[in-house]
Amino acid sequence: MTGTIMNIQQYMTDLGQRARKASRAMAKSDTRARNTALTLIATAIRRDAALLRKANQKDLEAARATGLDAAMLDRLTLSDKAIATMAEGLEQIVALPDPIGEISNMKFRPSGIQVGQMRVPLGVIGIIYEARPNVTVDAAGLCIKSGNATILRGGSEAIHCNQALATIVKEGLSGAGLPADAVQIVETTDRAAVGALITMPEYVDVIVPRGGKGLIERLMKESRVPMIKHLDGICHVYIDDKADVEKALRIAFNAKCNRYGTCNTMETLLVARDIAAGVLPKLAALYRDEEVELRTDAEAAKLLAGYPFLAAATEDDWRTEYLAPILAVKIVADMDEAIEHINTYSSQHTDAMVTEDYSRSLRFLREVDSASVMINASTRFADGFEFGLGAEIGISNDKLHARGPVGLEGLTSLKYVVFGHGEVRD
Amino acid sequence: MTGTIMNIQQYMTDLGQRARKASRAMAKSDTRARNTALTLIATAIRRDAALLRKANQKDLEAARATGLDAAMLDRLTLSDKAIATMAEGLEQIVALPDPIGEISNMKFRPSGIQVGQMRVPLGVIGIIYEARPNVTVDAAGLCIKSGNATILRGGSEAIHCNQALATIVKEGLSGAGLPADAVQIVETTDRAAVGALITMPEYVDVIVPRGGKGLIERLMKESRVPMIKHLDGICHVYIDDKADVEKALRIAFNAKCNRYGTCNTMETLLVARDIAAGVLPKLAALYRDEEVELRTDAEAAKLLAGYPFLAAATEDDWRTEYLAPILAVKIVADMDEAIEHINTYSSQHTDAMVTEDYSRSLRFLREVDSASVMINASTRFADGFEFGLGAEIGISNDKLHARGPVGLEGLTSLKYVVFGHGEVRD
Repeated sequence: MTGTIMNIQQYMTDLGQRARKASRAMAKSDTRARNTALTLIATAIRRDAALLRKANQKDLEAARATGLDAAMLDRLTLSDKAIATMAEGLEQIVALPDPIGEISNMKFRPSGIQVGQMRVPLGVIGIIYEARPNVTVDAAGLCIKSGNATILRGGSEAIHCNQALATIVKEGLSGAGLPADAVQIVETTDRAAVGALITMPEYVDVIVPRGGKGLIERLMKESRVPMIKHLDGICHVYIDDKADVEKALRIAFNAKCNRYGTCNTMETLLVARDIAAGVLPKLAALYRDEEVELRTDAEAAKLLAGYPFLAAATEDDWRTEYLAPILAVKIVADMDEAIEHINTYSSQHTDAMVTEDYSRSLRFLREVDSASVMINASTRFADGFEFGLGAEIGISNDKLHARGPVGLEGLTSLKYVVFGHGEVRD
Repeated sequence: MTGTIMNIQQYMTDLGQRARKASRAMAKSDTRARNTALTLIATAIRRDAALLRKANQKDLEAARATGLDAAMLDRLTLSDKAIATMAEGLEQIVALPDPIGEISNMKFRPSGIQVGQMRVPLGVIGIIYEARPNVTVDAAGLCIKSGNATILRGGSEAIHCNQALATIVKEGLSGAGLPADAVQIVETTDRAAVGALITMPEYVDVIVPRGGKGLIERLMKESRVPMIKHLDGICHVYIDDKADVEKALRIAFNAKCNRYGTCNTMETLLVARDIAAGVLPKLAALYRDEEVELRTDAEAAKLLAGYPFLAAATEDDWRTEYLAPILAVKIVADMDEAIEHINTYSSQHTDAMVTEDYSRSLRFLREVDSASVMINASTRFADGFEFGLGAEIGISNDKLHARGPVGLEGLTSLKYVVFGHGEVRD
């Protein structure tokens, strides 16, 4: 089925109907069955490591032939270590508490009924991602644990590897008495499959896209299914004039240089005027070793005279996610100007302030309208594992449903449950 | 401005920009200011009762001239009692705890950072509703309390009354030191205003439509802003063979006959075969007094022979929200068939089971995929006040964000907050 499927719409509708049916069985499955499936899959991944590497070789050869770039080949490659990590990841998911079925806040009402909420799966999750085989296993694992069915559409370059993984996942589900259709992989490389997946709200409850800005923008235009997504990460660090300089240097360096390509990397540094002369030259000494280009306003440029990778910032720089060793730098009068700048230009992903001032810290936390707001910590911490969610299906910049790093809970919903004793309404 | 506005798009963009700006001030406003505004508005509503009735008279005269039907005229009418109720409703909202700024679950992580969540307003709420002046005050009150800005688009027939209310609301906001633009009323009766409101996600964060199925369907097709909504309420009561007959009669009668026009009214009754003969004739005796038409399958028809308002159910009846003294009735073999029927035909609004069986009750709660699931209680309880939310902006049949009756919390979001001490990521 790797090649073309005659009628994509029919094929996807069939996948959707199977997923919807499987989701009903998953919703009522017990904790033990779902954990057993995850354990069986982890074991089978280790057992079939050679087979997986062979499938991956096929993908890599085809990808090289079509001239895929080095970074994408790197992400497509399934090393022995990556295989071991996939299996371990599943075992970590097993260890997380089952979110499903939990009943909370059961309160008696004056009418006599008792009302609370039960956590339930969303239903069917569609996941669209690039050619990264490890995402196949991660995403399947999180959906199984949270009692959802899922339809996975990975990058076409990973199709052989994903098919091998699908076989293993289905074996694990069946072995645990769960429907094999709870995890389905789109087995066609036809791009029309994505178009179908995002326009069948009757079978798919939510789409989680994982990929670059181009993919997300396209999906936002065309999707008729709600999405859990973030478009980009234009993250800020603001160094307040009441900052501890030592912390400021450590955080501003880490937020930029720990990794350049991640969405929680700092892209713009704001520095309070009164501390700029005491901080910027020291920071520049750190950035210089990493050859970080600084794009600054005129005022900062004066303090950075002689820095070898200096450029003048334009309005565009405040709106750019570089994902590279480039940093926009701006001097601001005070926290008010910093918050104003952040609420104007930030992508509402993650923004941090360095300060020792108590009242300002509370105002910053309250007034910055972003998914993660931090005091005296590196923006790089905005991550499901670091936040203690145990796992992460993605990060949301939206305000509805889930905001910030999204773990198992983001794949669930709360329904009201009522324990009555024959009550009727007046 | 009651008439035509030359450039609707420009007018709505202006409203959107003002709302966005006001929302920032509302988000950082304190509890006291928002409660003061609500109290001032309640006082002014009582003070200006005569003025409001006069504006309402204008609307009523115009509506009568255009031949509005009796039910709509009734909803448009602002009686002295309705005016008093509006003011009391605001005072009840004052008494609710402030949801905004609450920080929960601050936990230390191995890295040293402390992570939790802060409840924050969504931003700008667009509310689209029919010619019911009381909704103007209700909705404005809930949005003010939850720190949001709102744009209200009520039915054009209520325009004079809504303008009078808008003046009062703006006076209250200003009196409390809050921006008057936090509540704006669309002051044109041009329908293009709705089209603009639902397609400016840059200024409006969520749309709450309150109205009939036709309105919601149209908005679902055209909206580019997420909505908190329900399309219809096809609610079920399933009488299990382990039901207490007394409770079953009381609940099935109340769920249908308490009010016909509400979304939480029962539209289909399912009865277990083994108890049908013991229950249906007794129920029919109750329904007969209310002249409820029963549309039943062949098996139930036999048990109801001689009932004066009996008809044969067709497939369509299982999918119909009557909003009238009509009830679909079906005999099922057992709970499994009942759940299957509900998960197929229910609008996932509210479904109830009458039973004394412990294990079955737990299964019904878990397996019925609806926003509110009840045991031994009337579906009519599915309501923000009855559930203890204190107030209700609407009911959601969706699974994402808010599900079931939506109160103040549904108008908020959680952002992550991090208290650091200079931590950076390895």
